[in-house]
Amino acid sequence: MFNLDERLQNDTYFVANLPISQLLLMNDKQYPWFILVPRIADISETCQLSASKQVGVLAESNALSQALLDLYVPTTLNVAALGNVVRQLHIHHIARFEHDKAWPMPIWGHSPSVAYSDTEAQLLINQILAHAKIKELL
Amino acid sequence: MFNLDERLQNDTYFVANLPISQLLLMNDKQYPWFILVPRIADISETCQLSASKQVGVLAESNALSQALLDLYVPTTLNVAALGNVVRQLHIHHIARFEHDKAWPMPIWGHSPSVAYSDTEAQLLINQILAHAKIKELL
Repeated sequence: MFNLDERLQNDTYFVANLPISQLLLMNDKQYPWFILVPRIADISETCQLSASKQVGVLAESNALSQALLDLYVPTTLNVAALGNVVRQLHIHHIARFEHDKAWPMPIWGHSPSVAYSDTEAQLLINQILAHAKIKELL
Repeated sequence: MFNLDERLQNDTYFVANLPISQLLLMNDKQYPWFILVPRIADISETCQLSASKQVGVLAESNALSQALLDLYVPTTLNVAALGNVVRQLHIHHIARFEHDKAWPMPIWGHSPSVAYSDTEAQLLINQILAHAKIKELL
Protein backbone atom coordinates (compact mmCIF):
# COMPACT_ATOMS: atom_id res chain seq x y z
CA MET A 1 0.00 0.00 0.00
CA PHE A 2 1.30 3.43 -0.97
CA ASN A 3 1.85 6.01 1.74
CA LEU A 4 3.44 9.34 0.98
CA ASP A 5 6.77 9.72 2.78
CA GLU A 6 6.34 11.82 5.92
CA ARG A 7 9.05 14.29 4.99
CA LEU A 8 7.52 14.90 1.56
CA GLN A 9 4.16 15.35 3.24
CA ASN A 10 5.54 17.95 5.64
CA ASP A 11 7.49 19.89 2.99
CA THR A 12 4.82 20.17 0.29
CA TYR A 13 1.30 21.19 -0.64
CA PHE A 14 -0.88 18.53 -2.29
CA VAL A 15 -1.88 19.61 -5.81
CA ALA A 16 -3.65 16.66 -7.48
CA ASN A 17 -3.70 12.96 -8.10
CA LEU A 18 -2.62 12.35 -11.69
CA PRO A 19 -3.19 8.88 -13.19
CA ILE A 20 0.04 7.43 -11.71
CA SER A 21 1.51 10.09 -9.44
CA GLN A 22 0.66 12.55 -6.75
CA LEU A 23 1.54 16.05 -7.88
CA LEU A 24 2.96 18.16 -5.05
CA LEU A 25 4.14 21.75 -4.72
CA MET A 26 7.32 22.15 -2.70
CA ASN A 27 6.77 24.69 0.06
CA ASP A 28 9.68 26.91 -0.95
CA LYS A 29 8.75 30.11 -2.69
CA GLN A 30 12.30 30.73 -3.89
CA TYR A 31 11.63 28.49 -6.93
CA PRO A 32 8.59 27.15 -8.84
CA TRP A 33 9.22 23.57 -7.68
CA PHE A 34 6.82 20.68 -8.20
CA ILE A 35 7.26 16.98 -7.43
CA LEU A 36 5.75 13.83 -8.93
CA VAL A 37 5.44 10.85 -6.58
CA PRO A 38 4.23 7.65 -8.28
CA ARG A 39 1.59 6.12 -5.99
CA ILE A 40 3.32 2.74 -5.86
CA ALA A 41 4.73 1.27 -2.67
CA ASP A 42 8.39 0.45 -2.09
CA ILE A 43 9.85 1.95 -5.25
CA SER A 44 12.96 4.09 -5.14
CA GLU A 45 14.18 4.14 -8.76
CA THR A 46 12.32 4.87 -11.99
CA CYS A 47 13.79 1.72 -13.55
CA GLN A 48 11.98 -0.37 -10.92
CA LEU A 49 8.56 0.70 -12.26
CA SER A 50 6.81 -1.49 -14.82
CA ALA A 51 7.13 -0.37 -18.44
CA SER A 52 3.53 0.86 -18.58
CA LYS A 53 3.88 2.83 -15.33
CA GLN A 54 7.08 4.38 -16.67
CA VAL A 55 5.32 5.55 -19.81
CA GLY A 56 2.55 6.99 -17.63
CA VAL A 57 5.01 8.86 -15.43
CA LEU A 58 6.80 10.12 -18.55
CA ALA A 59 3.50 11.58 -19.81
CA GLU A 60 2.97 13.27 -16.44
CA SER A 61 6.53 14.60 -16.44
CA ASN A 62 6.01 15.97 -19.97
CA ALA A 63 2.80 17.71 -18.99
CA LEU A 64 4.33 19.20 -15.86
CA SER A 65 7.47 20.29 -17.74
CA GLN A 66 5.44 21.95 -20.48
CA ALA A 67 3.28 23.71 -17.91
CA LEU A 68 6.36 25.05 -16.09
CA LEU A 69 7.92 26.23 -19.37
CA ASP A 70 4.70 27.99 -20.39
CA LEU A 71 3.84 29.51 -17.01
CA TYR A 72 7.26 30.65 -15.82
CA VAL A 73 9.43 30.85 -19.01
CA PRO A 74 12.52 29.65 -17.13
CA THR A 75 16.11 29.48 -18.39
CA THR A 76 16.02 25.71 -17.88
CA LEU A 77 14.15 23.00 -16.05
CA ASN A 78 15.84 20.78 -13.48
CA VAL A 79 14.17 17.35 -13.67
CA ALA A 80 15.68 14.95 -11.19
CA ALA A 81 15.15 11.81 -9.14
CA LEU A 82 17.81 11.78 -6.43
CA GLY A 83 16.74 9.84 -3.34
CA ASN A 84 19.68 10.84 -1.15
CA VAL A 85 17.44 12.07 1.67
CA VAL A 86 13.98 10.62 0.93
CA ARG A 87 14.23 7.13 -0.54
CA GLN A 88 10.65 6.96 -1.88
CA LEU A 89 10.76 7.65 -5.63
CA HIS A 90 9.92 11.30 -6.28
CA ILE A 91 10.81 13.35 -9.31
CA HIS A 92 11.62 17.01 -8.87
CA HIS A 93 10.63 19.51 -11.58
CA ILE A 94 12.05 22.95 -10.90
CA ALA A 95 11.90 26.07 -13.06
CA ARG A 96 15.35 27.67 -12.84
CA PHE A 97 16.39 31.21 -13.69
CA GLU A 98 19.74 32.94 -14.05
CA HIS A 99 18.59 35.35 -11.36
CA ASP A 100 17.45 32.71 -8.84
CA LYS A 101 19.13 32.32 -5.51
CA ALA A 102 21.11 29.14 -6.16
CA TRP A 103 21.99 29.67 -9.84
CA PRO A 104 23.93 27.94 -11.41
CA MET A 105 24.13 25.47 -8.54
CA PRO A 106 21.50 22.82 -7.79
CA ILE A 107 18.88 24.03 -5.34
CA TRP A 108 18.92 21.04 -2.98
CA GLY A 109 20.62 22.01 0.25
CA HIS A 110 21.63 25.40 -1.13
CA SER A 111 19.54 27.72 1.06
CA PRO A 112 16.93 27.23 3.78
CA SER A 113 13.47 27.04 2.25
CA VAL A 114 11.15 30.03 2.44
CA ALA A 115 7.54 28.98 3.04
CA TYR A 116 4.59 30.25 1.01
CA SER A 117 1.57 31.73 2.68
CA ASP A 118 -1.43 29.49 1.96
CA THR A 119 -2.75 32.17 -0.40
CA GLU A 120 0.52 32.31 -2.34
CA ALA A 121 0.68 28.52 -2.61
CA GLN A 122 -2.93 28.34 -3.79
CA LEU A 123 -2.11 30.76 -6.60
CA LEU A 124 0.58 28.47 -7.99
CA ILE A 125 -1.64 25.43 -7.50
CA ASN A 126 -4.47 27.12 -9.41
CA GLN A 127 -2.12 28.16 -12.21
CA ILE A 128 -0.72 24.67 -12.75
CA LEU A 129 -4.16 23.02 -12.53
CA ALA A 130 -5.47 25.43 -15.16
CA HIS A 131 -2.78 24.47 -17.70
CA ALA A 132 -4.21 22.47 -20.62
CA LYS A 133 -1.60 19.66 -20.40
CA ILE A 134 -2.30 19.11 -16.69
CA LYS A 135 -6.07 19.35 -17.21
CA GLU A 136 -5.83 16.52 -19.75
CA LEU A 137 -4.51 14.27 -16.97
CA LEU A 138 -7.11 15.11 -14.34
CA MET B 1 23.20 18.54 -37.12
CA PHE B 2 24.12 17.20 -33.69
CA ASN B 3 27.46 18.22 -32.19
CA LEU B 4 28.39 17.24 -28.67
CA ASP B 5 28.75 20.30 -26.45
CA GLU B 6 32.43 21.23 -26.06
CA ARG B 7 32.33 21.19 -22.28
CA LEU B 8 30.78 17.71 -22.19
CA GLN B 9 33.41 16.59 -24.68
CA ASN B 10 36.23 17.90 -22.49
CA ASP B 11 34.87 16.50 -19.23
CA THR B 12 34.01 12.95 -20.34
CA TYR B 13 35.19 9.74 -21.97
CA PHE B 14 33.15 8.48 -24.92
CA VAL B 15 31.66 5.06 -24.14
CA ALA B 16 29.28 4.13 -26.97
CA ASN B 17 26.60 5.29 -29.35
CA LEU B 18 23.29 3.83 -28.18
CA PRO B 19 20.29 4.00 -30.55
CA ILE B 20 19.36 7.57 -29.55
CA SER B 21 22.07 8.83 -27.22
CA GLN B 22 25.80 9.03 -26.81
CA LEU B 23 26.81 7.31 -23.59
CA LEU B 24 29.63 9.14 -21.82
CA LEU B 25 31.65 8.51 -18.65
CA MET B 26 32.22 11.64 -16.57
CA ASN B 27 35.93 12.05 -15.90
CA ASP B 28 35.57 12.17 -12.12
CA LYS B 29 36.60 9.07 -10.26
CA GLN B 30 34.89 10.16 -7.04
CA TYR B 31 31.58 8.72 -8.36
CA PRO B 32 30.46 6.19 -10.98
CA TRP B 33 28.88 8.87 -13.18
CA PHE B 34 27.58 8.31 -16.70
CA ILE B 35 25.73 10.69 -19.00
CA LEU B 36 23.26 10.14 -21.84
CA VAL B 37 23.22 12.79 -24.55
CA PRO B 38 20.48 12.30 -27.16
CA ARG B 39 22.10 12.87 -30.58
CA ILE B 40 19.53 15.47 -31.63
CA ALA B 41 20.42 19.08 -32.31
CA ASP B 42 19.07 22.05 -30.37
CA ILE B 43 17.22 20.20 -27.63
CA SER B 44 17.53 21.25 -24.00
CA GLU B 45 14.56 19.58 -22.31
CA THR B 46 13.35 15.97 -22.42
CA CYS B 47 9.80 17.20 -23.13
CA GLN B 48 11.05 18.74 -26.40
CA LEU B 49 11.92 15.31 -27.81
CA SER B 50 9.35 13.47 -29.96
CA ALA B 51 7.34 10.80 -28.17
CA SER B 52 9.23 7.96 -29.90
CA LYS B 53 12.63 9.47 -29.06
CA GLN B 54 11.52 9.88 -25.45
CA VAL B 55 10.60 6.21 -25.22
CA GLY B 56 13.98 5.35 -26.73
CA VAL B 57 15.84 7.51 -24.23
CA LEU B 58 13.77 5.98 -21.42
CA ALA B 59 14.90 2.50 -22.50
CA GLU B 60 18.52 3.68 -22.53
CA SER B 61 18.10 5.27 -19.10
CA ASN B 62 16.60 2.04 -17.77
CA ALA B 63 19.47 -0.03 -19.12
CA LEU B 64 22.08 2.34 -17.74
CA SER B 65 20.32 2.53 -14.36
CA GLN B 66 20.08 -1.24 -14.08
CA ALA B 67 23.74 -1.61 -15.03
CA LEU B 68 24.79 0.89 -12.35
CA LEU B 69 22.62 -0.84 -9.73
CA ASP B 70 24.08 -4.24 -10.62
CA LEU B 71 27.71 -3.19 -10.97
CA TYR B 72 28.07 -0.80 -8.03
CA VAL B 73 25.18 -1.67 -5.66
CA PRO B 74 24.71 1.98 -4.67
CA THR B 75 22.47 3.40 -1.94
CA THR B 76 20.56 5.32 -4.63
CA LEU B 77 20.86 6.57 -8.18
CA ASN B 78 20.75 10.25 -9.01
CA VAL B 79 19.11 10.59 -12.43
CA ALA B 80 18.90 14.21 -13.50
CA ALA B 81 18.63 16.60 -16.41
CA LEU B 82 19.63 20.05 -15.14
CA GLY B 83 21.03 22.28 -17.90
CA ASN B 84 22.18 25.09 -15.63
CA VAL B 85 25.71 25.06 -17.02
CA VAL B 86 25.49 23.08 -20.29
CA ARG B 87 22.22 23.78 -22.10
CA GLN B 88 22.41 20.76 -24.48
CA LEU B 89 20.10 18.05 -23.10
CA HIS B 90 22.17 15.54 -21.15
CA ILE B 91 20.94 13.17 -18.46
CA HIS B 92 23.20 12.39 -15.54
CA HIS B 93 23.13 8.90 -13.99
CA ILE B 94 25.23 8.72 -10.84
CA ALA B 95 25.64 5.84 -8.40
CA ARG B 96 25.57 7.40 -4.92
CA PHE B 97 26.78 5.95 -1.63
CA GLU B 98 26.43 7.01 1.98
CA HIS B 99 30.21 7.05 2.16
CA ASP B 100 30.78 9.17 -0.96
CA LYS B 101 32.35 12.58 -0.78
CA ALA B 102 29.25 14.72 -1.33
CA TRP B 103 26.66 12.58 0.48
CA PRO B 104 23.82 13.48 1.07
CA MET B 105 24.28 16.58 -1.09
CA PRO B 106 24.11 16.61 -4.89
CA ILE B 107 27.51 16.10 -6.50
CA TRP B 108 27.34 19.02 -8.98
CA GLY B 109 29.67 21.76 -7.83
CA HIS B 110 30.40 19.99 -4.55
CA SER B 111 34.09 19.18 -4.99
CA PRO B 112 36.63 19.61 -7.78
CA SER B 113 36.61 16.57 -10.05
CA VAL B 114 39.38 13.98 -9.76
CA ALA B 115 40.41 12.64 -13.16
CA TYR B 116 40.76 8.95 -13.97
CA SER B 117 43.91 7.57 -15.52
CA ASP B 118 43.04 6.22 -18.99
CA THR B 119 43.45 2.69 -17.61
CA GLU B 120 41.02 3.34 -14.76
CA ALA B 121 38.45 4.89 -17.11
CA GLN B 122 38.77 1.99 -19.54
CA LEU B 123 37.98 -0.44 -16.72
CA LEU B 124 34.63 1.28 -16.00
CA ILE B 125 33.89 1.55 -19.72
CA ASN B 126 34.54 -2.17 -20.21
CA GLN B 127 32.36 -3.04 -17.20
CA ILE B 128 29.38 -1.04 -18.41
CA LEU B 129 29.72 -2.27 -22.00
CA ALA B 130 29.76 -5.86 -20.75
CA HIS B 131 26.43 -5.50 -18.90
CA ALA B 132 23.63 -7.44 -20.60
CA LYS B 133 21.19 -4.50 -20.66
CA ILE B 134 23.73 -2.23 -22.34
CA LYS B 135 24.81 -4.97 -24.76
CA GLU B 136 21.18 -5.28 -25.90
CA LEU B 137 21.35 -1.67 -27.10
CA LEU B 138 24.65 -1.87 -28.96
